[in-house]
Amino acid sequence: MIQITVMQIDNYGPWTVTPNPRRESDLQALQSRLYTDLSLQFGVHKGLVFYTRFDNLIAVTNGIDLETHKRIQNSVKNRYPFTLSMSIASAETPYEAQKIATKRLQEYGSAQDEVRKEVFDVSTELVSENEGYVQLAHIDIDDVTGTMTDKDSAYDTYLQIKDAQVKLFKSLKKYNALGFFIGGDNFMCPCNGMNENDLSCMFEDILKSDGISLKAGLGIGKTAEDASNLADIGLEIIRDGKCEGSVYTLKQNSEESLKIPHNYTCSI
Amino acid sequence: MIQITVMQIDNYGPWTVTPNPRRESDLQALQSRLYTDLSLQFGVHKGLVFYTRFDNLIAVTNGIDLETHKRIQNSVKNRYPFTLSMSIASAETPYEAQKIATKRLQEYGSAQDEVRKEVFDVSTELVSENEGYVQLAHIDIDDVTGTMTDKDSAYDTYLQIKDAQVKLFKSLKKYNALGFFIGGDNFMCPCNGMNENDLSCMFEDILKSDGISLKAGLGIGKTAEDASNLADIGLEIIRDGKCEGSVYTLKQNSEESLKIPHNYTCSI
Amino acid sequence: MIQITVMQIDNYGPWTVTPNPRRESDLQALQSRLYTDLSLQFGVHKGLVFYTRFDNLIAVTNGIDLETHKRIQNSVKNRYPFTLSMSIASAETPYEAQKIATKRLQEYGSAQDEVRKEVFDVSTELVSENEGYVQLAHIDIDDVTGTMTDKDSAYDTYLQIKDAQVKLFKSLKKYNALGFFIGGDNFMCPCNGMNENDLSCMFEDILKSDGISLKAGLGIGKTAEDASNLADIGLEIIRDGKCEGSVYTLKQNSEESLKIPHNYTCSI
Amino acid sequence: MIQITVMQIDNYGPWTVTPNPRRESDLQALQSRLYTDLSLQFGVHKGLVFYTRFDNLIAVTNGIDLETHKRIQNSVKNRYPFTLSMSIASAETPYEAQKIATKRLQEYGSAQDEVRKEVFDVSTELVSENEGYVQLAHIDIDDVTGTMTDKDSAYDTYLQIKDAQVKLFKSLKKYNALGFFIGGDNFMCPCNGMNENDLSCMFEDILKSDGISLKAGLGIGKTAEDASNLADIGLEIIRDGKCEGSVYTLKQNSEESLKIPHNYTCSI
Repeated sequence: MIQITVMQIDNYGPWTVTPNPRRESDLQALQSRLYTDLSLQFGVHKGLVFYTRFDNLIAVTNGIDLETHKRIQNSVKNRYPFTLSMSIASAETPYEAQKIATKRLQEYGSAQDEVRKEVFDVSTELVSENEGYVQLAHIDIDDVTGTMTDKDSAYDTYLQIKDAQVKLFKSLKKYNALGFFIGGDNFMCPCNGMNENDLSCMFEDILKSDGISLKAGLGIGKTAEDASNLADIGLEIIRDGKCEGSVYTLKQNSEESLKIPHNYTCSI
Repeated sequence: MIQITVMQIDNYGPWTVTPNPRRESDLQALQSRLYTDLSLQFGVHKGLVFYTRFDNLIAVTNGIDLETHKRIQNSVKNRYPFTLSMSIASAETPYEAQKIATKRLQEYGSAQDEVRKEVFDVSTELVSENEGYVQLAHIDIDDVTGTMTDKDSAYDTYLQIKDAQVKLFKSLKKYNALGFFIGGDNFMCPCNGMNENDLSCMFEDILKSDGISLKAGLGIGKTAEDASNLADIGLEIIRDGKCEGSVYTLKQNSEESLKIPHNYTCSI
Repeated sequence: MIQITVMQIDNYGPWTVTPNPRRESDLQALQSRLYTDLSLQFGVHKGLVFYTRFDNLIAVTNGIDLETHKRIQNSVKNRYPFTLSMSIASAETPYEAQKIATKRLQEYGSAQDEVRKEVFDVSTELVSENEGYVQLAHIDIDDVTGTMTDKDSAYDTYLQIKDAQVKLFKSLKKYNALGFFIGGDNFMCPCNGMNENDLSCMFEDILKSDGISLKAGLGIGKTAEDASNLADIGLEIIRDGKCEGSVYTLKQNSEESLKIPHNYTCSI
Repeated sequence: MIQITVMQIDNYGPWTVTPNPRRESDLQALQSRLYTDLSLQFGVHKGLVFYTRFDNLIAVTNGIDLETHKRIQNSVKNRYPFTLSMSIASAETPYEAQKIATKRLQEYGSAQDEVRKEVFDVSTELVSENEGYVQLAHIDIDDVTGTMTDKDSAYDTYLQIKDAQVKLFKSLKKYNALGFFIGGDNFMCPCNGMNENDLSCMFEDILKSDGISLKAGLGIGKTAEDASNLADIGLEIIRDGKCEGSVYTLKQNSEESLKIPHNYTCSI
């Protein structure tokens, strides 16, 4: 079971143009700051947030209780010119969990409802650190620096990566997995339910059809942070040529992860 | 002439995994904070930055001089665990300008060069507020809240918008125009050289081929901020049904823009 | 028992002038941002940080475990151009606790030692939420807005408050209590060991000798946040004239605090 | 002539307790973030802000025009849950300038007036970079690290520095100079009208009466940033034992400042 929190700024669109359109650089600063804050506040509880559309965010929150969620929601109200709604759900796959969470949120009213404020909903039982697990694939494109960043224009590289992103995300969806851009040429993909073979096959298909060469560290842990740390290490092992294949899996507390050379051990 | 600044965090990829992979929530907070800061620092000089790939950013900087650029570069070094390279160029179209700027940056060495630090380059003459102009199209998708946000799952809406984004950006490129996601279902598109008709035709093509219905406020001004303010107002005029067609153009200091009802006037 | 965490930026002074003095506005932005981040990161775990000297900070951290401390320390390293040392101690009074914590930190080397980095020390057993307690007095000066802010110059008001601050803090020290400025004319004072009468007498003495009229909400709770919430409510009760005297005490889960009218109940 | 901007959060006190007292860690994060932002936004225009009481801030703004001020005021409204009033004045001394600015602000209504919002006032003509000048003394206490930070408890060091601060600021006021704490044991003191001898005598008096040994770099420049850079360099020259006496003065574009060894030259 993976626990997903869907967050939505209440009535944000209308606010950005009331009474007149607000300065774009301020809106960009405001939105990215909200993402920064939520990353730190969920992060210090081992969660991981994705900026998604900036006014709608998706987080992996296994092990994070209701009170902490409510405190973060309250902290946003205390410091921002708007409020934030939150809906939490868990399911076997991340796609299913976010779908349940969104549905419940929608039942309270439109994203642009003037009255709907600070929805706080829990659709299913919370997933504690002892039950459930988070599976994250940290995927990147092979040698982007050498083949794109250092050769093509900044915008062309950007466009190629956006293009690859959409292709990757559409493929992931077939497995009820999600994908999010995390900077550079990196994607973090919650994918409970997929296995190493699914990923490898998917990469082969994408290589054949679109000529994009991908690889992934696959991390399985109790929390989003545990899983992402292991996924990062897995990806480093492939980058360093220390394994064959395009996917390397590490599972928290498994014998395999205990044998990781100290050099790869993340600090807490 | 439009002036574009291409920025790149120096040797960022290797830093994120040295000595071990750094916590993902921290990296997300760090990257989005850099974007927040640059938005405020360029914004207070009427520039507009786009986060692009977070480690590679593109900004529209007409009217911003070299000293200000250098001061912002220096401010990043003073407050971040990394440094930032900057390359400035101007051209008739934004695509051309960023291409020139990137090329010059690449001549100094790889993005992952350990020695290359704080490149500061100006390829062409700077564009003052009195010469040149910035043209920005603020484009959104029709009724996303009603047809997607309030109906589909948060992730499906996200995926549909990413898909539309790639289609839009590929079309824009044919006109040497750029596109950037600015949150929700909004795109800000530097497009010096396109005219209202080009945009309308492009929107018709996208509607026909992909079923995506777009509209745009087109702003033409001395600086990125002037242009984006006017583009925002143009888009509001369409949203309010106060004009026909899918594009509404406003030009700084033109008679038309002087006739804007007070209600639409942006504060400075 | 109150748990105090003493934090110190490692070798900060020399860094600010290497290789040349860094721009002052950048240093101010950097220091206050660190304080913002620590406030959010400890805050989401119910702690409370005081900026103290900006390069040396003091926090009340009852109920916050070692792993969380270490994760925050690590998060600073991941996002700042410097590192942070932490030393934790608990004692019957806050003065004693910070003294023990500082002493242990000093044993590792000078604040300006080039080698000493990321000290992490725990002098005594941690205080869980079930043992120990935090006592905070939220003290302000009577009618500063009416008698100073709206009449005197901004700087004169500032100076008068700094003067009152030093007088108050010297008096508090006699009780092994600490005091910190938290904005406006407000001071937050960790004061385990003092009682309502101690505070009242101290206020009378200060009124007699210095003509400064003070009042306090006194909150006693399991964590810094619980205590400060109750202290805030106590102060509001006095401000609203709903009680006599210059001190109003509220204790978590006591009958008295359960009788607080709903209007005064803090959200979590 | 020095130009001073007095800023005040509108009706902040009441907001912090409406409808109930807001979480203290959030308020601390909010206030220090405002200070961070203003430091960056004025800083990129060569101004320097002091946090003062957090809800009332004082800035040195020579060379910063009205439009920039208004844009920063507007940017705060766009991103914060409150608004900011600004009042600008210039005079021969900083004390006089802030006094005029405050008086004008007060004429618009109380700091806790529910209706008064976003006051924007200019009492005197603005000071351009070509007229007027900024004089800043960067003052610190001799060997605080060796005698206090590394020996006394964190709180005792803090208290001693707060005590020295009040003594210093009272002495400065006799010269119509201002003083602000900028972290560690450092004070930045706008002091147009004082000369090197005034400072030296003042330091001798403070040493005699209070046993506190001070020194200062004195910078005179066109903007706050120019002056603070020179003051920083002056202080470094004393710290390095490269001059006798407790004050070292550097004036922008003077022969003396041109002879500064390259090692001391600030980057822009």
